[in-house]
Amino acid sequence: MSTLLKSAQALKPLFDRVLVQRLKPINKTASGLYIPEKNQEKLNQGVVISVGPGMTNTNTGEVIPVSVKAGDQVLLPSFGGNPVKVGEEEYLLYTDKEILAKIENNNN
Amino acid sequence: MSTLLKSAQALKPLFDRVLVQRLKPINKTASGLYIPEKNQEKLNQGVVISVGPGMTNTNTGEVIPVSVKAGDQVLLPSFGGNPVKVGEEEYLLYTDKEILAKIENNNN
Amino acid sequence: MSTLLKSAQALKPLFDRVLVQRLKPINKTASGLYIPEKNQEKLNQGVVISVGPGMTNTNTGEVIPVSVKAGDQVLLPSFGGNPVKVGEEEYLLYTDKEILAKIENNNN
Amino acid sequence: MSTLLKSAQALKPLFDRVLVQRLKPINKTASGLYIPEKNQEKLNQGVVISVGPGMTNTNTGEVIPVSVKAGDQVLLPSFGGNPVKVGEEEYLLYTDKEILAKIENNNN
Amino acid sequence: MSTLLKSAQALKPLFDRVLVQRLKPINKTASGLYIPEKNQEKLNQGVVISVGPGMTNTNTGEVIPVSVKAGDQVLLPSFGGNPVKVGEEEYLLYTDKEILAKIENNNN
Amino acid sequence: MSTLLKSAQALKPLFDRVLVQRLKPINKTASGLYIPEKNQEKLNQGVVISVGPGMTNTNTGEVIPVSVKAGDQVLLPSFGGNPVKVGEEEYLLYTDKEILAKIENNNN
Amino acid sequence: MSTLLKSAQALKPLFDRVLVQRLKPINKTASGLYIPEKNQEKLNQGVVISVGPGMTNTNTGEVIPVSVKAGDQVLLPSFGGNPVKVGEEEYLLYTDKEILAKIENNNN
Repeated sequence: MSTLLKSAQALKPLFDRVLVQRLKPINKTASGLYIPEKNQEKLNQGVVISVGPGMTNTNTGEVIPVSVKAGDQVLLPSFGGNPVKVGEEEYLLYTDKEILAKIENNNN
Repeated sequence: MSTLLKSAQALKPLFDRVLVQRLKPINKTASGLYIPEKNQEKLNQGVVISVGPGMTNTNTGEVIPVSVKAGDQVLLPSFGGNPVKVGEEEYLLYTDKEILAKIENNNN
Repeated sequence: MSTLLKSAQALKPLFDRVLVQRLKPINKTASGLYIPEKNQEKLNQGVVISVGPGMTNTNTGEVIPVSVKAGDQVLLPSFGGNPVKVGEEEYLLYTDKEILAKIENNNN
Repeated sequence: MSTLLKSAQALKPLFDRVLVQRLKPINKTASGLYIPEKNQEKLNQGVVISVGPGMTNTNTGEVIPVSVKAGDQVLLPSFGGNPVKVGEEEYLLYTDKEILAKIENNNN
Repeated sequence: MSTLLKSAQALKPLFDRVLVQRLKPINKTASGLYIPEKNQEKLNQGVVISVGPGMTNTNTGEVIPVSVKAGDQVLLPSFGGNPVKVGEEEYLLYTDKEILAKIENNNN
Repeated sequence: MSTLLKSAQALKPLFDRVLVQRLKPINKTASGLYIPEKNQEKLNQGVVISVGPGMTNTNTGEVIPVSVKAGDQVLLPSFGGNPVKVGEEEYLLYTDKEILAKIENNNN
Repeated sequence: MSTLLKSAQALKPLFDRVLVQRLKPINKTASGLYIPEKNQEKLNQGVVISVGPGMTNTNTGEVIPVSVKAGDQVLLPSFGGNPVKVGEEEYLLYTDKEILAKIENNNN
């Protein structure tokens, strides 16, 4: 039996989970020199790929929607997140509350 | 006394538990060569075999149904799950909230 | 003073506790050879002997009945449970939520 | 100042606590031989001496009575309980929820 | 600046706290011989000096009074309690729920 | 950039926090001899400098006021508290529930 | 892919999070001498850059606003906070409840 997971788009997060593609570390200096991998700084930033339907409030039955949406640029915590490999790419699954902040540059 | 458990179908999960059959690791390369077992990558993917009736909300008495159903393809967490052996096959029992995402390929 | 506990039937579990008799490990191969004790595989299966009256919902005063009943065949977790010795037999006390699944073979 | 505690009857457990006298280990074999103390098996059984008034439900103000009563024979957990020494005798204080089961032999 | 605390009576416990004076260990045998300090047994008994106004139920605003009162003789847990030194005397502050039992001898 | 904190009076505790100035250890005997610093006993007593507005009950929206006020003499726990340095003086921030008791001497 | 985060202003904290710029340690004595970095004292003070919309009360659906606002001078706990690097500057993300106190000097 081979992998069931053919693309990140096939992943439908459950509950309040958020699928994020993390930014790759910068591998060139401003002047164009390559930085060796062990010197590259890990970036805690990413782009939201998809989000779950939200968590259901068990008292009222209401669904609490997720606070970010596909396409949002977000700040990620240094630890945590569930890694998911799709082909050669690695994605991360967070719960909504773990996402620290949205990044909204004016020139977005 | 011998085993009571004659098939995975005999298992009726309680509460919000989900019985999952995990995908076997890929043991051949694309070109057909066998990969030695220690080099095979464990896949965090599986197929739902059966689900419990759901957890009862102790405040309202309402049953909260499980978010996946038999036949669903799912993404599993790297850790956790209760292993159950039926004959030579190994299954896993998760609670509903532990299942990370559904996998829905268009060509399913 | 000698033991108060003369039979497993004398035990009346409190709250949502479930008294289970675990299956003994298989000690003979299919062809009838004896398996030495250290090679016998422990079976996480058992039969429910008796159950408590259920836990009381402290908000509503309602009793939440236990989800299994005497005679049910059940799948047990690998860890946990309170051992109780009656004569030479060992039983286990679990809370209702610890029982993983019921085993319902068609030919039961 | 000498001990205030002259008898176990003077102890009035608070809240949902249960005062239990544990069974002494069996110190003679069936044929009347004495068993040295280090070989005597500790018995997780006891008799309830007195119980507290029960815990008050802080939401409704209702008192939830204790599930056992003085004179009940009970099964005790292997760990826990607060030892109380009265003269040469040792008693144990448990909370109601820690008591595993009642022991009700027909010939009681 | 010298101590603010001139007597145990000056201490007004807050919330559901209970100020207790522990019994001193017995330092003489019944026949009048002195017991060296390291052989004296610590007594888990004491007398309540004062109690707080009780904890406020944050749902209903009602105050839940403390279950013991000044003058009560009480059984103390083996661990816990906040030591308070007033002059040469040591007192202990417990929360109401930590007090195990009242001691009510008939000849009190 | 230099310190923003020019006096303890500038500190406005948030929520149910309490700013306390701890008593300095006694550094002279009754007869006027100086006690070396390592022999000075730490005093768990202090004076309340300021208090927060109280915690908001998230169910009812009501604010639960802090149980002590500026000027109160209080008994502090042996551990905990958040140290704040203002110039050469050290203050401590506690939550309301951590304060053990008020000290109210008659001759206050 | 290069950094998405071009300025601290681009960060929009989620829920009850607070973005704070910590004060730099004092690197000169009053008389103008430079203090070596290892002798500089870390200051637990900072200025609020931006705050999240507040946490939603899942019982009532109401949003509980954050207790500080952009521009507030605040006292920070010694531990905790999520570091965020923007260019050469380091900021910290706290939850509202972690902020100890506001600093309000009269000459602000």
